Amino acid sequence: MLSLAAPSLRLGVSSCHGSTRSIATVISGIKTSKLVRERLKVEVEKMRSQFPGFRPGLVVLQVGDRDDSNLYISTKLKAAAEIGIEAKHVRLPNTTTEDEVLQSIMSINQDVSVHGLIVQLPLDSVNSINTELITNTVSPEKDVDGLSCINAGRLSRGELNNCFIPCTPNGCMELIAQTGVSVAGKNAVVIGRSKIVGAPMHDLLLWNHATVTTCHSKTADLPEQVGRAEILVVGAGRAEMVRGEWVKEGAVVIDCGINHVPDETKASGKRVVGDVHYASAYQRAGFITPVPGGVGPMTVAMLMKNTVQSAQRFLLKNQRR
Amino acid sequence: MLSLAAPSLRLGVSSCHGSTRSIATVISGIKTSKLVRERLKVEVEKMRSQFPGFRPGLVVLQVGDRDDSNLYISTKLKAAAEIGIEAKHVRLPNTTTEDEVLQSIMSINQDVSVHGLIVQLPLDSVNSINTELITNTVSPEKDVDGLSCINAGRLSRGELNNCFIPCTPNGCMELIAQTGVSVAGKNAVVIGRSKIVGAPMHDLLLWNHATVTTCHSKTADLPEQVGRAEILVVGAGRAEMVRGEWVKEGAVVIDCGINHVPDETKASGKRVVGDVHYASAYQRAGFITPVPGGVGPMTVAMLMKNTVQSAQRFLLKNQRR
Repeated sequence: MLSLAAPSLRLGVSSCHGSTRSIATVISGIKTSKLVRERLKVEVEKMRSQFPGFRPGLVVLQVGDRDDSNLYISTKLKAAAEIGIEAKHVRLPNTTTEDEVLQSIMSINQDVSVHGLIVQLPLDSVNSINTELITNTVSPEKDVDGLSCINAGRLSRGELNNCFIPCTPNGCMELIAQTGVSVAGKNAVVIGRSKIVGAPMHDLLLWNHATVTTCHSKTADLPEQVGRAEILVVGAGRAEMVRGEWVKEGAVVIDCGINHVPDETKASGKRVVGDVHYASAYQRAGFITPVPGGVGPMTVAMLMKNTVQSAQRFLLKNQRR
Repeated sequence: MLSLAAPSLRLGVSSCHGSTRSIATVISGIKTSKLVRERLKVEVEKMRSQFPGFRPGLVVLQVGDRDDSNLYISTKLKAAAEIGIEAKHVRLPNTTTEDEVLQSIMSINQDVSVHGLIVQLPLDSVNSINTELITNTVSPEKDVDGLSCINAGRLSRGELNNCFIPCTPNGCMELIAQTGVSVAGKNAVVIGRSKIVGAPMHDLLLWNHATVTTCHSKTADLPEQVGRAEILVVGAGRAEMVRGEWVKEGAVVIDCGINHVPDETKASGKRVVGDVHYASAYQRAGFITPVPGGVGPMTVAMLMKNTVQSAQRFLLKNQRR
């Protein structure tokens, strides 16, 4: 492996296989998410100057008091405030019943000042609550997490302009766009088929006209599948499972993984790694997202994007009336 | 190419490429659909002996009077009658407005004796009618065509037991099942991404644990993609576009195409071919569906299956109450 200390030498150097080896350009989620948030701030200002008194409204509904949820919610509220979105945190105690959560959602569905409603998951209640039912009770027109059946159905059948796209895959598309690589006609491989990452990622790549292969735990020949990918998106939830040797030279590699692994050199005794073995993939990919600082920061930015989009749709609908 | 007159010789003969060449086993949609319909008849009889007076109910709603629609509907009504499904044909004139169609659907949605409601497409009206809106007004619990957003969303996210699966891809799965080839872990390639064939076919193969690649008009290397397919489902709508040379030796080839091509040897001056070049694919595939007589006959059978399933769900729900 070539030394990290001599990057200029690695550009255009022939590998032992006779092909031209390049090292990857790092796609920064921190920079890209900042760009997105700045763009949204301008859009909100424009909206507010056109419609004085108007503000995009977001509600984050929380059941219970999980520490991790509290942290995620505070990040969302902060991002919203910076952009000019009116964000409200609705807290229900952990004794809340399913019926009470449903009532609360239906009342927020009715509130015309709210354009986006997200229910922070997992629900933290002493009562048994059907998460699917909760997710599908959020009005599809306010479902800025894009988790309802109706939004999934629209996305999966190509109605990209008539749905909300889940935030993590939407962020991945934004990162891919940063590379300048066109998606149409490319061989794209998605590892994972979860509702919030893999499955909608497939849909997005497909309807942006890539030839898409979805891999998962039952895939027989993962290294071979990965080796064909000009665009690779990994949401497998397994630390460093994709090895650099598998990666096609020059590929765009997007890593959605967030895994904690033991690391004695850290004060906390652990560090965060992705689903891709970064050091080796970096030697082969054309573009790669780091972990942390890649896909992670995009998710909140895309939630803000969906909320602003929802407010714009609301205004457009009201103008037409 | 080996002669069709000496089939026994073709089994296990080495090809010029040094691999063992086999000819395909033909998967008959006529036989398989008959099996499905017989199985359903037994299930309906069982239902009726358990719940005297009960019959699964299907409504076919037609707007206008297209000849092709009339033919399709009469096939559906005949199949329903044979199985013991109470099928009703509701005809609206071609002067019907969108609002009137919606009213009609909503009234059928309310009718507890109806378990399946399909709207025959295309709508034949002098008025402009939004087909999407019509399709999505059918109650998801009666949408036995599986065309509503909600059913598409559930299918695309893997809730196979909580949705209605569109009839053509569901029929393809039944044909694949006939081969005895297990889908899990196989490389499956779907050509086409339409709402009624390609997109739901992808979902079905994926959630039956195949590694699925979706190809379409923007795919750069179609022969190469097809060559990797252990299971190939083609719904491209282009006569004989998939050449036998592309097909992987031993693959399961399912052809959803119905194309009319000129043929002077026929009295009608034309004949029906699929999206796969049958004669050449037959020499390489392990299993292949003919056109006609393959996927075609399965579609109506699977509509009946969905209707019976809907009636069963209805009974189950009522028992629980």
